[in-house]
Amino acid sequence: MPLITLTTDFGSVYPAAMKGVILGIDPRATIIDIAHTIPHGDIRAGAFALYSVVPYFPTGTVHVAVVDPGVGTARNSIVIFAGNHFFVGPDNGLMVPAASRLGNMQVRKITNFGLLGDISATFHGRDVFARIGAYLSEGIPLEEIGETTLDYVHLDFGAVEVKANFISGEVIYIDDFGNVITNIKASDMLKMFNFKEQVRVFGNPMPFLATYGSAGQGELLALIGSHGFLEIAVNRGSAAKMLKIQCTNEVRIEK
Amino acid sequence: MPLITLTTDFGSVYPAAMKGVILGIDPRATIIDIAHTIPHGDIRAGAFALYSVVPYFPTGTVHVAVVDPGVGTARNSIVIFAGNHFFVGPDNGLMVPAASRLGNMQVRKITNFGLLGDISATFHGRDVFARIGAYLSEGIPLEEIGETTLDYVHLDFGAVEVKANFISGEVIYIDDFGNVITNIKASDMLKMFNFKEQVRVFGNPMPFLATYGSAGQGELLALIGSHGFLEIAVNRGSAAKMLKIQCTNEVRIEK
Amino acid sequence: MPLITLTTDFGSVYPAAMKGVILGIDPRATIIDIAHTIPHGDIRAGAFALYSVVPYFPTGTVHVAVVDPGVGTARNSIVIFAGNHFFVGPDNGLMVPAASRLGNMQVRKITNFGLLGDISATFHGRDVFARIGAYLSEGIPLEEIGETTLDYVHLDFGAVEVKANFISGEVIYIDDFGNVITNIKASDMLKMFNFKEQVRVFGNPMPFLATYGSAGQGELLALIGSHGFLEIAVNRGSAAKMLKIQCTNEVRIEK
Repeated sequence: MPLITLTTDFGSVYPAAMKGVILGIDPRATIIDIAHTIPHGDIRAGAFALYSVVPYFPTGTVHVAVVDPGVGTARNSIVIFAGNHFFVGPDNGLMVPAASRLGNMQVRKITNFGLLGDISATFHGRDVFARIGAYLSEGIPLEEIGETTLDYVHLDFGAVEVKANFISGEVIYIDDFGNVITNIKASDMLKMFNFKEQVRVFGNPMPFLATYGSAGQGELLALIGSHGFLEIAVNRGSAAKMLKIQCTNEVRIEK
Repeated sequence: MPLITLTTDFGSVYPAAMKGVILGIDPRATIIDIAHTIPHGDIRAGAFALYSVVPYFPTGTVHVAVVDPGVGTARNSIVIFAGNHFFVGPDNGLMVPAASRLGNMQVRKITNFGLLGDISATFHGRDVFARIGAYLSEGIPLEEIGETTLDYVHLDFGAVEVKANFISGEVIYIDDFGNVITNIKASDMLKMFNFKEQVRVFGNPMPFLATYGSAGQGELLALIGSHGFLEIAVNRGSAAKMLKIQCTNEVRIEK
Repeated sequence: MPLITLTTDFGSVYPAAMKGVILGIDPRATIIDIAHTIPHGDIRAGAFALYSVVPYFPTGTVHVAVVDPGVGTARNSIVIFAGNHFFVGPDNGLMVPAASRLGNMQVRKITNFGLLGDISATFHGRDVFARIGAYLSEGIPLEEIGETTLDYVHLDFGAVEVKANFISGEVIYIDDFGNVITNIKASDMLKMFNFKEQVRVFGNPMPFLATYGSAGQGELLALIGSHGFLEIAVNRGSAAKMLKIQCTNEVRIEK
């Protein structure tokens, strides 16, 4: 069963045009929305959303991802093959964390324009990526997409430093609960802190706990989220709102 | 054709991980979102959303529901079988109004951990409920999930009192139009009021009508919504905004 | 493979009831959401959403559309057949621009109530349009729906005037990026302006460019959107917010 996921910052309506294109090529495809609410143009937030869910999809899945402020400019369009998943989207780093999480990446530039029709200047999600995604789900050989390349845009979630008495990193995503997700991995956190210990984040003391309900209602806590990263949360509330945190804030976890 | 619905307070991204898990187990499954915008942790609002749509799904449907502020704490995970539908989620009452609407409930605790893999402390929607839902849609016998139990959390939509000259109840849901949905059933309302009569709600006089367009534009009305409950609405406007009503407000319908 | 699209102003929950009804009748149907976030009761915005995506769906698709402030009043329910697509919804103009874009329209009133069950006064999306849509996707002959009619509500996107030194039109849609979409077609725009020329819109000078990324970050531009209409945008920002524009505003493009 062909399976295609979509990750965009498009909101509503535009993703439906992509789905129409896909089903026109491959009517058997199952299409799953990962998110269409990525903050507009926030490539790293889109990369995190995709990264956090790809391991839960079966091999053979085609992931079409479009957070693409450079659409219609000179940026390339690429396909990445990694861990028996396919990724289709702009060459701006968006798909790199997810793909490299699954295995070694084979990157190809989309140069076979014979597979495409008219291409608008502003909507490659519909005119390029959805079409290529549908052909991949139908089983077109990768070689027909274009040549492999080693020249593509990298992206990671930023540096983490483990110091004598603090860990510093960055906020990479704020989820729809208002949980503030950082780039600090469980393994880094557990080097310095034990569960149930008090930590200090953004100047606020809070316990480092296993789950939301272990904190008092309305109280801050630090925990390892289901994605494997350190997350600042409020039990039954929004940490982003309480702390007025935004994506890209630096974050420091102190003793 | 296996059919699975999802009802959560997750917003975006997290539901996609659940869908990946489901399709990894049962690639033929059709997955339908009921809502992922339930107010965070509002179990009764989630219960109402599920309750209001289940009669429109065919028998054999598996409903996975996760509004779960107690995730990772001592609360149980359950499956309910009722009216030839299956419900999978936390034991916090969320699925009880919907299931009991369909027929007698058979409740089982999920204790067969052999069906599951690693379980995170914070995302049982992905690690427990999606998996069990997919197995049920594939036709696994209910007995393999765990033993039946009579010890589970109940939930209802609150008390309604029909007095001499008023009916009192509670607001249980505010829909995306801003319609204020109460727990007062049509049958209770019609004991005291006739269509086209004036009523007084939250101190405001308004007519009791059959449909939105029967009120003047921008004007308040009371009506029986498509879910069978009394609803306060504004024709082409938001009653919740106009009256500053929130979920859990008490409501009194007066002559 | 039967394919049904949904376009509504319902937000969440209610569309799921429609999907349950459809899958109860035709379990093989693939259901694609175009949008459920049309501004409440804004028939023209809904018409634009549908119009902008229908050409990307394969022939045979059934489009169920419900922006229906007149539900339960005397307005008719109709099916339109055009360009080998089917449209099902209220007779208020909602489906006319999309259908007439695809070909000559054959309009039929839904009068065969034998196909329907109980009909609520407030939710014909569930009780009428979803059911008829599912029957059409199953291949029921059009004649069984009801008689053809020439008496139906028209709708267009408003007048555009090309004058000596300006073009005037209307705002018809604001997308989720905050792009302000007008009813001025590319062909009209290109009669008076060349790419890269400066234009003045809502009193603001801005360049007429091919794509968002050709403007400076945070800067206004005019461009032909992927839907073929003139659009006012901000590169990596919201033009609607910056200019405080709303749907139905008049717009004038000046030299």
